[in-house]
Amino acid sequence: MTDWTQDLPGHLDRAWHRLAEGAADPDAPGRIATLATTGPDDRPEARLVVLRGADRAAGTLEVHSDARTGKVRALSARPMAALVVWIPPDRLQIRIEAVVTIRTGAEARTVWDRLPDGGRLAYGIDPPPGTPVDDALYPARRPDPEALAVLTFGVERIETLHLGSPHRRAVFGRGAGWSGRWLSP
Amino acid sequence: MTDWTQDLPGHLDRAWHRLAEGAADPDAPGRIATLATTGPDDRPEARLVVLRGADRAAGTLEVHSDARTGKVRALSARPMAALVVWIPPDRLQIRIEAVVTIRTGAEARTVWDRLPDGGRLAYGIDPPPGTPVDDALYPARRPDPEALAVLTFGVERIETLHLGSPHRRAVFGRGAGWSGRWLSP
Repeated sequence: MTDWTQDLPGHLDRAWHRLAEGAADPDAPGRIATLATTGPDDRPEARLVVLRGADRAAGTLEVHSDARTGKVRALSARPMAALVVWIPPDRLQIRIEAVVTIRTGAEARTVWDRLPDGGRLAYGIDPPPGTPVDDALYPARRPDPEALAVLTFGVERIETLHLGSPHRRAVFGRGAGWSGRWLSP
Repeated sequence: MTDWTQDLPGHLDRAWHRLAEGAADPDAPGRIATLATTGPDDRPEARLVVLRGADRAAGTLEVHSDARTGKVRALSARPMAALVVWIPPDRLQIRIEAVVTIRTGAEARTVWDRLPDGGRLAYGIDPPPGTPVDDALYPARRPDPEALAVLTFGVERIETLHLGSPHRRAVFGRGAGWSGRWLSP
């Protein structure tokens, strides 16, 4: 069996495999990504997100958010994102640079219609996410299709780092047709 | 036994407990953080880092890096950082905003002197981290005290999010003496 860690196609295949698995399986190690954005005053911001889609052919990832969150505000102002996924069983770090497209309202309706009732509870909390409240039990869940934002990340660059012996680091760019090259780790 | 998820001091205590544990124990869930910075052209950048220190009294975290990495370049230009740590057994997300101080050379020497030989191998790879190379096996490890950067993150704000039933989210600021308040999750 080929060891995926040793060649460039192996790194790229492994990264997309883990991203697709994460998008499909709540228990997969690629389920959770850290999403970094540039906020007001050029300050970096970051938080966890759940991967909801990964399309290698299109080179896109999908994340769902309440439309009233800081991350949607940041991405509305500057549609650039960095995503990091850590895959413990592979000792693999996946770093992604992407540009984001945000869909809400009627444009997000096909996604809303496919959400189970439990999933819809994540969108429409009152008061909106991040609002100071006197009591943690006060916010009420009021499912609202207008509160769903579908974030589609157009991946521009993927960097892989395998923490093995030796460490191996590679980079793949959309502009180069996803051909890769090694980097000093 | 008090349930730490239900009150504000419980959230802050749990966050610092997990950060300190991560800094001390390579197998602890708080060992790895995602560090987000603002790079050239205001682009967000993020990557995994290993926590090497956590001092609640001072409100600081410590990370070590090769001094020639993109993260040190980004932080030298804009010393603002966001850190995210995910603690699976607690279903706890810890988000941190911080300002960074960078020490290298003579200022980092006391840290260098305490590193084991194996740890020193992480600083001084040739060519420098991120340099394109023709062969992943080509870079050579040449331990070099001049290549160590000690990053001290002065924490300004900690946000906790416990994904329980219900979700509870809180924020604590240095300016307010670390008194906390609840946020809508």
